[in-house]
Amino acid sequence: MARPDGRGASDLRHITIESGIAPHAHGSVLIRFGNTQVICAATLEESVPRWMKDQGVPGGWITAEYSMLPYSTLSRKPRDIVKGRPDGRGTEIQRLIGRSLRAALDLEALGSRTLWVDCDVLQADGGTRTAAITGACVAVELACRTLIAGGKIPASPVKRRIAAVSVGIVNGSPVLDLNYLEDKDASVDMNLVMTEQEEFIEIQGSGEEAVFSAAEMSAMLDLGRIGIHKLIEIQNTALS
Amino acid sequence: MARPDGRGASDLRHITIESGIAPHAHGSVLIRFGNTQVICAATLEESVPRWMKDQGVPGGWITAEYSMLPYSTLSRKPRDIVKGRPDGRGTEIQRLIGRSLRAALDLEALGSRTLWVDCDVLQADGGTRTAAITGACVAVELACRTLIAGGKIPASPVKRRIAAVSVGIVNGSPVLDLNYLEDKDASVDMNLVMTEQEEFIEIQGSGEEAVFSAAEMSAMLDLGRIGIHKLIEIQNTALS
Amino acid sequence: MARPDGRGASDLRHITIESGIAPHAHGSVLIRFGNTQVICAATLEESVPRWMKDQGVPGGWITAEYSMLPYSTLSRKPRDIVKGRPDGRGTEIQRLIGRSLRAALDLEALGSRTLWVDCDVLQADGGTRTAAITGACVAVELACRTLIAGGKIPASPVKRRIAAVSVGIVNGSPVLDLNYLEDKDASVDMNLVMTEQEEFIEIQGSGEEAVFSAAEMSAMLDLGRIGIHKLIEIQNTALS
Amino acid sequence: MARPDGRGASDLRHITIESGIAPHAHGSVLIRFGNTQVICAATLEESVPRWMKDQGVPGGWITAEYSMLPYSTLSRKPRDIVKGRPDGRGTEIQRLIGRSLRAALDLEALGSRTLWVDCDVLQADGGTRTAAITGACVAVELACRTLIAGGKIPASPVKRRIAAVSVGIVNGSPVLDLNYLEDKDASVDMNLVMTEQEEFIEIQGSGEEAVFSAAEMSAMLDLGRIGIHKLIEIQNTALS
Amino acid sequence: MARPDGRGASDLRHITIESGIAPHAHGSVLIRFGNTQVICAATLEESVPRWMKDQGVPGGWITAEYSMLPYSTLSRKPRDIVKGRPDGRGTEIQRLIGRSLRAALDLEALGSRTLWVDCDVLQADGGTRTAAITGACVAVELACRTLIAGGKIPASPVKRRIAAVSVGIVNGSPVLDLNYLEDKDASVDMNLVMTEQEEFIEIQGSGEEAVFSAAEMSAMLDLGRIGIHKLIEIQNTALS
Amino acid sequence: MARPDGRGASDLRHITIESGIAPHAHGSVLIRFGNTQVICAATLEESVPRWMKDQGVPGGWITAEYSMLPYSTLSRKPRDIVKGRPDGRGTEIQRLIGRSLRAALDLEALGSRTLWVDCDVLQADGGTRTAAITGACVAVELACRTLIAGGKIPASPVKRRIAAVSVGIVNGSPVLDLNYLEDKDASVDMNLVMTEQEEFIEIQGSGEEAVFSAAEMSAMLDLGRIGIHKLIEIQNTALS
Repeated sequence: MARPDGRGASDLRHITIESGIAPHAHGSVLIRFGNTQVICAATLEESVPRWMKDQGVPGGWITAEYSMLPYSTLSRKPRDIVKGRPDGRGTEIQRLIGRSLRAALDLEALGSRTLWVDCDVLQADGGTRTAAITGACVAVELACRTLIAGGKIPASPVKRRIAAVSVGIVNGSPVLDLNYLEDKDASVDMNLVMTEQEEFIEIQGSGEEAVFSAAEMSAMLDLGRIGIHKLIEIQNTALS
Repeated sequence: MARPDGRGASDLRHITIESGIAPHAHGSVLIRFGNTQVICAATLEESVPRWMKDQGVPGGWITAEYSMLPYSTLSRKPRDIVKGRPDGRGTEIQRLIGRSLRAALDLEALGSRTLWVDCDVLQADGGTRTAAITGACVAVELACRTLIAGGKIPASPVKRRIAAVSVGIVNGSPVLDLNYLEDKDASVDMNLVMTEQEEFIEIQGSGEEAVFSAAEMSAMLDLGRIGIHKLIEIQNTALS
Repeated sequence: MARPDGRGASDLRHITIESGIAPHAHGSVLIRFGNTQVICAATLEESVPRWMKDQGVPGGWITAEYSMLPYSTLSRKPRDIVKGRPDGRGTEIQRLIGRSLRAALDLEALGSRTLWVDCDVLQADGGTRTAAITGACVAVELACRTLIAGGKIPASPVKRRIAAVSVGIVNGSPVLDLNYLEDKDASVDMNLVMTEQEEFIEIQGSGEEAVFSAAEMSAMLDLGRIGIHKLIEIQNTALS
Repeated sequence: MARPDGRGASDLRHITIESGIAPHAHGSVLIRFGNTQVICAATLEESVPRWMKDQGVPGGWITAEYSMLPYSTLSRKPRDIVKGRPDGRGTEIQRLIGRSLRAALDLEALGSRTLWVDCDVLQADGGTRTAAITGACVAVELACRTLIAGGKIPASPVKRRIAAVSVGIVNGSPVLDLNYLEDKDASVDMNLVMTEQEEFIEIQGSGEEAVFSAAEMSAMLDLGRIGIHKLIEIQNTALS
Repeated sequence: MARPDGRGASDLRHITIESGIAPHAHGSVLIRFGNTQVICAATLEESVPRWMKDQGVPGGWITAEYSMLPYSTLSRKPRDIVKGRPDGRGTEIQRLIGRSLRAALDLEALGSRTLWVDCDVLQADGGTRTAAITGACVAVELACRTLIAGGKIPASPVKRRIAAVSVGIVNGSPVLDLNYLEDKDASVDMNLVMTEQEEFIEIQGSGEEAVFSAAEMSAMLDLGRIGIHKLIEIQNTALS
Repeated sequence: MARPDGRGASDLRHITIESGIAPHAHGSVLIRFGNTQVICAATLEESVPRWMKDQGVPGGWITAEYSMLPYSTLSRKPRDIVKGRPDGRGTEIQRLIGRSLRAALDLEALGSRTLWVDCDVLQADGGTRTAAITGACVAVELACRTLIAGGKIPASPVKRRIAAVSVGIVNGSPVLDLNYLEDKDASVDMNLVMTEQEEFIEIQGSGEEAVFSAAEMSAMLDLGRIGIHKLIEIQNTALS
């Protein structure tokens, strides 16, 4: 079954990671998964949330925020502050990003500081959350390097590089890294956050109007592993 | 490894489903997963959301809301309206419940009406979201029966019964249906929404500070299947 | 004049008080006034509001919150957090509950702690505020017993048992404990919070589209006294 | 027992009603109960709330809003919009004002329009809600006269003039029209809304830390009747 | 070209400043620019904002709030708290008032306290922001006198008296102090905040649908200077 | 007096305008004033605000929104939605942008549609509002070209090209286009929006802690004219 952009089932879109997009952040990248573009910025703050102080939890914290810029979608998306309430989908995604990054970092080794990770979608064409996680991981590592360079911590708190990719079932076939056209027709949509060693950090699969079988899940996981390996390779290049 | 409440790894807690807890709803149950208690109520409204009207989408809609009553937790949880913002975790859970139920129902067969599904946690001891989905499925089916009894629709729009259960890795071992004590020590926490035919509706697995392997996932899925079968049997009894 | 449910003018509906409905609270009851059902839960917090600390006020505090669960009404009532603002009627009622309970308790004897009293209506059929006060009084006393049992205070801070009941003028006749059908046709609606010694804590009477005479008020107060005595007897049984 | 300002137990403070304070309103007064000053403005809008249209309710509506200007209190009171939420006490009071005025007016005779009644406290020295109701009643009648003068309605929709006054027990004695000094020491605080014919519209009595007897209530009602008669006389003068 | 109210191009409307309108404030005035009426109240608080404490900034602070009372406009303006968000125009104006007053005062000489300046429009007929600034300056000076009288500061922190006036181009001609009728037809609207020495504090000119030339600006500034001189004379009288 | 970055008093920073930064918008640019970077995106919506429909106003509308991305500032700026209220400074700026653009466009010629103009600051180093206006003007013109290309309107509704620049007094000397270092030390800060013909659209000058003379204003205006001419030349190039 041909994909709309001519890719094979296990092909990622063209991926690029450009660092330094937001110079005031401690680490930042513009990541592209095809036409999907996300600004990922990591900013350090030399304090921790009140609940950590109150409970005496050692080490640091990571908080992620995800937002779609109003002009990132095909029809303009009103800002949350104009609607007066946070977007439900955005809340779900930023919680996923935060959990993923907390699994990638040794929070104690970060020291008593907060790493704010902002992911703002500049152009949405499917896979914004997986692009956000994959890019955020690079931005965080860049920010940690400024801590080491400044003599604030001896070694990087990054325990493992992680990447994220979507897989799904479109027209009955499993495919990797769905774009918007595929995404809206997919019967199953799954997002994977994994390490280079093929360990899972997060798996979120959903068949909103359909069900999927163990065999389909297995096929999707196989594609996912291929994508994760390629993405981590691209991260390695960006960070070398 | 012994579980805190003496269960075997593949044992569910004691599950009960009591119908009619909220008599003004069209269908309602109080579901218990051990000490976890959730009120699930399905209420019909004879209209659909504005976006469906505007876009001319046929059929009906399901909206789910999830909330923890302030006295459901060990230390009192302030109400969302007092904090002035919706709870992030609650937002994530109610989106999960909504997607799950939309996969269980034929929305066209529901007719041009909205099914509001409210899940309010009376006591939280782990697994509130899986209890909510399992109970909501029964409440929805009870509400649909009132439509049939009232001659409003000819047959039930329920396409498939679904249930949800949590699985996880605690102290290195996979276990089914974690209670709060296990949940807070688990290295992996996974929620499964499935059908009697072992098809997946939703899979959400997370290792916040840890990773998990394909073998661990496989062991968790095996336990999950056992739990889903038992839960659907209990649903069948409640609905017969 | 016959009442819709066949009661005499001075008859209460069937009243039940079931304790332990919310096991994580320090004291809780499900109270029923006929079809009206309210969950009343009292939760202790070992600190006082900031304004008490700032002003150096000794003793403790009671805060009440009242809410109608969305499925408690004949047509579903949207949650406050979805509407984005607290409900005006609910605000008025929770202020009434709080004032009533503060008159029942010796706040100094409570010690430096806050008693949170949550009243959530499970089914609304008239008289939810009076059921809430009558039930909350029992929940508070149960919570105070845990303080005594735990050796935290030597004796109960409850100065007096209080109960609440509605009276009104329906079709020109005074009646006790109105249900929803009567309430919506009543020309006068009055709520009384009183002690066993027939002392007043609160009196709130309103004739929204009508006026009422001193004679009518007198007749309503006579009925109210009868209801209060019966309710306090039921509380005494529940607490013995 | 001497009162702080030398009044007798049944004396009102000096009351003045000055009309035209807000020239853009259809009717407005500045009412003074001693040092308490409230701006009451009635504004007509040629439409009714959506719920009246939807339910096909004939006639008009009255909505009241009550607010304390930030500089009306001894220490500055932050604006609701800065705190981000409506004030609980204010909500309770504006509901009382609205109910009182709806009992004074024939809403059908008002025609299909809304009467907005705004009460803004310029200086608070006790009794702001009773001053607000007493003044609002005059402002509403002035606004209705503009409707008659404009030929929009044939006769005044005002069914009865109403006034409001506070009574209470201070140092064991019943007194009329409490100022702030008395109010904060009162063991019982009661607000009465009544007609010239001594009919009740609203009675709200509260003993926050104390109880009160039927005899005390009777004594307070006697004082209240005296106050109401004098206030309606002052209204009559202001409106003649 | 005749002005609607018969004034000459360089004539102010009738200006009055009446002090003591809000007796609980430390300084207050009701200022009238023709039919425009604004309550300006200055209230002292013996503490400074948190950011000043945190950053160790010496001296005091001024915060201004501006609001239109609902009945101040020709058709009733809903309150911000009812709309749930601050009014954009109001935000812009209160920032202008705050900046202007901070330029008039020596904040260090004010001592470690906050001066709250509230400007509430009672009747709006054009020029509410200029009336607010002109009146607020008097209210602030009155409040400072209470500090001196109380021995809290040795001398007034007022560095310079300031006043504000609007100028504009109406039907091609420059005019001073526009009323509402002129304002809505003006092609250019400019607000000036100046000192008696003709120094500028703020200049804000806007041609929303039109442009204006340097010559027109010059003509408007000439009129502005005339207005400022007269206004400061009126302030001087009010404060003497 | 040397400027921190070595520029002469009448030198702009290095200005670039890069189009197409947000491909889903109908027109978009990334504009740089030195280190200040702002994304300006113009999005068309084929409808007008409700108030225009209700009042029967012909033609279209422009709404501007301005926001600083959290990582645009030296220390991270929390998002408005997290603080729960719109930023006061941002509100002021977006109103300025909207007014400026409405003066540049013939709204009737735009047809019955809304032009949403979003300005998001990627890096803030002084002059973000002037960069936003200058860039937005280009984005709007690009969006209008898509309307012409699509045959929806016959000719461009842009009446005049406009640009904006800041001028100020730093260390006693007038300078053009202040960066952040200069801005925070400036005694006067003025923003000018002008046309190529040296006509004014907006002038906003403020001396928060200081005053400024007519001579200083004149010197600033001279510098402003120089800057505007250069900026419009750069716009012309970007649009040719």
